[in-house]
Amino acid sequence: MNHSVTTAELFSAKAPLINGQRLWQSLMDLAQLGATAKGGVCRLALTDLDRQARDLFVQWCTEAGCSVSVDAIGNIFARRPGRDAQRAPVMTGSHIDTQPTGGKFDGCFGVLAGLEVIRTLNDLGLQTAAPIEVVVWTNEEGSRFPPCMMGSGVFAGRFDLAETLAKRDEQGISVGQALQGIGYAGSRAVLGHAVGAYFEAHIEQGPILEDQGKTIGVVMGCLGQKWFDLTLSGVEAHAGPTPMALRKDALVGAAQVVAAVNRIAHALQPHACGTVGCLEVHPGSRNVIPGEVKMTLDLRHLHSDKLQAMVDQVQQAIAEACDQHGLTQRLTPTADFPPLDFASQCVDAVRDGAVQLGLSHMDIVSGAGHDAIFLAELGPAGMIFVPCEGGISHNEIENASPEDLAAGCAVLLRAMVSAAN
Amino acid sequence: MNHSVTTAELFSAKAPLINGQRLWQSLMDLAQLGATAKGGVCRLALTDLDRQARDLFVQWCTEAGCSVSVDAIGNIFARRPGRDAQRAPVMTGSHIDTQPTGGKFDGCFGVLAGLEVIRTLNDLGLQTAAPIEVVVWTNEEGSRFPPCMMGSGVFAGRFDLAETLAKRDEQGISVGQALQGIGYAGSRAVLGHAVGAYFEAHIEQGPILEDQGKTIGVVMGCLGQKWFDLTLSGVEAHAGPTPMALRKDALVGAAQVVAAVNRIAHALQPHACGTVGCLEVHPGSRNVIPGEVKMTLDLRHLHSDKLQAMVDQVQQAIAEACDQHGLTQRLTPTADFPPLDFASQCVDAVRDGAVQLGLSHMDIVSGAGHDAIFLAELGPAGMIFVPCEGGISHNEIENASPEDLAAGCAVLLRAMVSAAN
Repeated sequence: MNHSVTTAELFSAKAPLINGQRLWQSLMDLAQLGATAKGGVCRLALTDLDRQARDLFVQWCTEAGCSVSVDAIGNIFARRPGRDAQRAPVMTGSHIDTQPTGGKFDGCFGVLAGLEVIRTLNDLGLQTAAPIEVVVWTNEEGSRFPPCMMGSGVFAGRFDLAETLAKRDEQGISVGQALQGIGYAGSRAVLGHAVGAYFEAHIEQGPILEDQGKTIGVVMGCLGQKWFDLTLSGVEAHAGPTPMALRKDALVGAAQVVAAVNRIAHALQPHACGTVGCLEVHPGSRNVIPGEVKMTLDLRHLHSDKLQAMVDQVQQAIAEACDQHGLTQRLTPTADFPPLDFASQCVDAVRDGAVQLGLSHMDIVSGAGHDAIFLAELGPAGMIFVPCEGGISHNEIENASPEDLAAGCAVLLRAMVSAAN
Repeated sequence: MNHSVTTAELFSAKAPLINGQRLWQSLMDLAQLGATAKGGVCRLALTDLDRQARDLFVQWCTEAGCSVSVDAIGNIFARRPGRDAQRAPVMTGSHIDTQPTGGKFDGCFGVLAGLEVIRTLNDLGLQTAAPIEVVVWTNEEGSRFPPCMMGSGVFAGRFDLAETLAKRDEQGISVGQALQGIGYAGSRAVLGHAVGAYFEAHIEQGPILEDQGKTIGVVMGCLGQKWFDLTLSGVEAHAGPTPMALRKDALVGAAQVVAAVNRIAHALQPHACGTVGCLEVHPGSRNVIPGEVKMTLDLRHLHSDKLQAMVDQVQQAIAEACDQHGLTQRLTPTADFPPLDFASQCVDAVRDGAVQLGLSHMDIVSGAGHDAIFLAELGPAGMIFVPCEGGISHNEIENASPEDLAAGCAVLLRAMVSAAN
């Protein structure tokens, strides 16, 4: 584009306006840093590969005319000025660290969609009222340094800065040392930033959009999560000489709990998930009745009351299993995230963008954690999902189509401009 | 006793006649060899501790006037002559090797009860028509050198001698080398021995006698066993973004199979056991839906047709679980032992002994393997069970009362004399 476009023209345009080919090329360029033989990316947080990726992002943002700042936990902010420097910025972003066997799109799409929004605004010669910021949040994956969503958590005041900088990886290197090492221990403060609005574009990481044949997921909110560790203890005994009636088989009780978690989640649809991801049997010998089982419970629901109902029903099922099979139990909570409803104006801005562009879309909820969850504590927030192939993520074969990514980016452009004016 | 006792007098005596205190003392003396801090025994097959135990047994038998011979797989035979040297011997025995964390009674009770029978016959001045033999079978546990029941298996022609001698432990030492090393590579042939009858006294290794308050278990036979490895494969996916309806959760299917194995075994009582002893979840991450589960199935029944019905019903349940949860399966048989009925004359001899002595008794079946299973292929065989505390065996806390052990030995005396006349 060589002529300036007004905001009104932008919203009436049926064309996406963003440059999908440029977005795709940026994604592929970034994916070279840490590229794996199987087509994925291994770029753990605060490694030298992460530094290379950060440097490339900073270079691109500087070339796009942004001012770049880095805060004390290493979050990178690229700002495109608005007409009113006093207005809180409309922000977007995600992360560029990956799982050890991660893909090209998880996180990177959100960051580079933000960059493409700025490049497009430059192309269109369109100045927004509020500043626009694109953020790279430090260590979203938490693979090298738990917990996940570290950078956004510190930014939102959910994690203490000093404690977080002191966390160490398996080699004993602290977050603070690693930030110094790659030159991203910044001077910007981590707290007290006003957020005009926050949008995050992301691959769905699930199969719903593909299953429903929709291009855009209008993310209404995030499932609350309650995690537990459960140990069931019975009596270890020989599988041959111990008659069924005299057994206290911990695995038979555990199987009943697995079935109950599955049944309860199915019964509380929509927006309920129940998963037993880990289950260890002791002593684990083929002719010994299991004396102990350790397992994890992951319960999720969009509504707090329903989430609590899931917990209550699962606890009831555990008690019944223990009664029936002569077992004792130890149930320990390990995580508790309340459900989140995104701000209606952000949700509407995303939906309006999809409608304006004539894109197929559906309301959806996020089952996974994202930086947007912490940003929602600082201002109105929303998310845009696009399909990923087979719903597969956190995997080297993670894939998404250039068309769907471009569509998500075009919706992001409209949502941000809407919020920034 | 200083006077000779006739067979008729033996059978009409209400007194046990055997010396329970002497039996107990021999058990405690033998348990010193490999004694563990927790009160158990660690005496793996063909180690120097096994040699010491064998030497002690040989010394005791020689002192009791027996002639001792050793066969090519290291089985030790202590013979007390009968009036008719042409008659096949009435045999008893068991094993003196232990599990790495074994107890004082598993196996050793059967061997030393046999020794006590010979000592008692000497005390009574009673000569049987057929010779009496007490046997130590090599490597019943199979802990160091699989398979278990090695010595009796070779003696019965179920295992090839040369192949068995070539089996190696984890250090690469062969059975043949280990036998040479401890001086128990004997010259007696392993095949072609006539067996007049075989009795084996053993702790129950299960909780039934204790539960029923009975002293003597009249063992009717042994459960047949069919073992399988089962792999269920679904699709690994994230626990949050993957809705319940689109999951292929291998653990939910596996839990259904665990429940089915338990339900089917309960429904085919008496004498049915079904156990899943091992179950491994992949990838085993708390927020990842399990993509694969590997598990073992151990199905046992006293009757072949019922055992096959268990297999059929479990296969049906696996197929249903796969259909319901979108899984694929791989079921591999790993062991198959047919059920065994002990010879009625041996079963009756054991029951008659208990009745003569006024001991509480019940018919029972063996759920575990014993040397008697292989001996039953060579002649009529039977077993005598006595209670063990809490049904616990293969454990350092394995325990049995001197009174119960003496009672079992007294029944063994009567059953052997009955068969030997």
